[in-house]
Amino acid sequence: MIDELVSQQDALDAARRVRGTDDVAEALARVAWSVVTDPGDAVAATLVREFGPADGMRFALDARGRSWPMVRAAGARRALDEARARWRQRADPAAVIDALRRAQTAGAHLLLPGDPDWPLAVDDLDTEAPVVLWARGRPELLTSAARVAIVGARAATAYGERVAADLSGDLAAAGTAVVSGGAYGIDGAAHRAALTVGGGTIAVLAGGVDRPYPAGHRNLLTRIAVDGVVVSEVPCGTAPTRWRFLARNRLIAALGQATVVVEAGWRSGSLNTAGHAATLGRPLGAVPGPVTSASSAGCHRLLREYDAVCVTSAAEVAEMLPIDARSPHAHDATEEGRVLLLRALSTRTARTEAQLAQRADLTVERTRALLGLLDLDGLARRDGDGWRGIGAARTS
Amino acid sequence: MIDELVSQQDALDAARRVRGTDDVAEALARVAWSVVTDPGDAVAATLVREFGPADGMRFALDARGRSWPMVRAAGARRALDEARARWRQRADPAAVIDALRRAQTAGAHLLLPGDPDWPLAVDDLDTEAPVVLWARGRPELLTSAARVAIVGARAATAYGERVAADLSGDLAAAGTAVVSGGAYGIDGAAHRAALTVGGGTIAVLAGGVDRPYPAGHRNLLTRIAVDGVVVSEVPCGTAPTRWRFLARNRLIAALGQATVVVEAGWRSGSLNTAGHAATLGRPLGAVPGPVTSASSAGCHRLLREYDAVCVTSAAEVAEMLPIDARSPHAHDATEEGRVLLLRALSTRTARTEAQLAQRADLTVERTRALLGLLDLDGLARRDGDGWRGIGAARTS
Repeated sequence: MIDELVSQQDALDAARRVRGTDDVAEALARVAWSVVTDPGDAVAATLVREFGPADGMRFALDARGRSWPMVRAAGARRALDEARARWRQRADPAAVIDALRRAQTAGAHLLLPGDPDWPLAVDDLDTEAPVVLWARGRPELLTSAARVAIVGARAATAYGERVAADLSGDLAAAGTAVVSGGAYGIDGAAHRAALTVGGGTIAVLAGGVDRPYPAGHRNLLTRIAVDGVVVSEVPCGTAPTRWRFLARNRLIAALGQATVVVEAGWRSGSLNTAGHAATLGRPLGAVPGPVTSASSAGCHRLLREYDAVCVTSAAEVAEMLPIDARSPHAHDATEEGRVLLLRALSTRTARTEAQLAQRADLTVERTRALLGLLDLDGLARRDGDGWRGIGAARTS
Repeated sequence: MIDELVSQQDALDAARRVRGTDDVAEALARVAWSVVTDPGDAVAATLVREFGPADGMRFALDARGRSWPMVRAAGARRALDEARARWRQRADPAAVIDALRRAQTAGAHLLLPGDPDWPLAVDDLDTEAPVVLWARGRPELLTSAARVAIVGARAATAYGERVAADLSGDLAAAGTAVVSGGAYGIDGAAHRAALTVGGGTIAVLAGGVDRPYPAGHRNLLTRIAVDGVVVSEVPCGTAPTRWRFLARNRLIAALGQATVVVEAGWRSGSLNTAGHAATLGRPLGAVPGPVTSASSAGCHRLLREYDAVCVTSAAEVAEMLPIDARSPHAHDATEEGRVLLLRALSTRTARTEAQLAQRADLTVERTRALLGLLDLDGLARRDGDGWRGIGAARTS
């Protein structure tokens, strides 16, 4: 299918318009992957990683008779064969062109790994990372220095909505982007409060970014698509489904440097988001409420069973963030970050940006930016996939 | 002073009437200690432990010119000399007789270590254990198989009082004795609910058991002194003071096998009780509430800073208790306890009752009772201060 797409003028034109560049081979291949796969397809991710998006797809779809040379284990071969059967049913070049045209109509950006606005945070999902992201509004918010996911029950109480709004408003006013799912209840209260204080907010949808869902949030999502960003990994035109909501939750957890559940019933879907945050090693917070309120039972469960942090204020949420994300508006963050990063660098061993970010307790985005500064100052240099420190005084 | 007391007919009569026995030498000595010392006097406790209550007091008060033969370190000698000066100011035989007569008038029992109703749990306070206990009502409640301290703010909200009553009522109905401080607010709600379901409740006072405090709880404390037990370590007639409230809190924490704080402001006195529970290694629970309520701020602080368990129901409180205390009304507890205790016994090494209780996850009281049964069955025997298992099959 990929060779068919890159030889069709329609496909090339549609991709060029959405990407704003002539170099659209990878974009077409990745959009094709997003059309033929469901979110978080680990088999697809492995092929993309191994062969690149275009060759991986040739391998998966076009080389019908070809064997899988790198796969020897029978179980893995079976998984690949099953995946290939699924993908082939959806391998329609017209669907790729349709997705691109709908995106253009909706004014959606197509983000690929490596783009400046691609959030490195979602790569923590490893083989469940999204293959592309579609974004309406201000995609640069996806790489905000500080990002907190605030989620909770659709059937929220007045108490829950008030607390969500207080937390979100205070965090957004201090420069933290508020990530949520655009739903009724806690999600909506969090988005609205962030917009009200003129802060950044990210709505992650389970369907296409051109399909505001729920319908009652059409106006809210339209506002977010201007002053914030509405983002999804599924192509424009895709309807949200129960399964896509669950898959979407992992993106919310990955985009937030911490996740806070404000109100949740005993079996609330937001506990699923909390589970993803915990799996990713992201700090998890829960807001307590009256024990007499069923809407807080899920939060109390997180406190009892999942060792969530009890949070009652924006300041307590900020304590859960990486050090450099706690006061994103502060101007001395650069000097503090340089010191932390210099300590994290070794002159002997090259360390990747992710390793350095973890050692320095900085975001990957900030680590990357600071490494650029240290490089200019002659204090760090690239070495293969990583970085080393330079300096006679450093011996570690 | 002690020789003066045991030679005065007034003193002997007063002690005999309160104790109901002619053997009152230790009682007089311990009451004398409780009159001359403040609660939790570790220097006094050390002397009592080293020399016994009567000889310890002779040493402390009567042998004016005598040195302290067992103390060589200058710091410890100074502490002893200072303590002796304090004690001598209060060494009045008439005060001892007065305390005994007031107790008799109030119908208070005088409990000494070794009495069947003496709660071994308070001995966990080590050198801060009480030297005597005065009890009005049913002193046998002090050794209930299951005991939970439920404490909280005097300035409680309707929510807090409701939750305290729900927890206390459910626990007391299941056979757990509810320990609290008799104060307004949470304490009162906890006591009342336990009485309402016909369960056991223990009110630990900062002043004498003949001085109901606060005045507005005179009727409640009078009911507890009949259907439950009102207990204090200070002599009858003693007024409660701020310092005595703080000292009293350690007894509440020691008498409870777990402590639950229902509502507490940021600097509530119940956090002091929580601190004692944590110091004693007792499980600590906190009931969450609305983050918008200042009356829950102390509970949320316990959840955040002191690793308290988030509790929302009596069942969750019961999970914090030793295994044999979780269903005190169950009749198969004896067989289960025997099995646990047999596993905890070693045939090679003698273990104390406290060590065995900890290993078997049983209360000390139950461990002692079960050891008696195992002794009768020829499965365990005393060895010095501890117990050993007997049996060819046992090799541990």
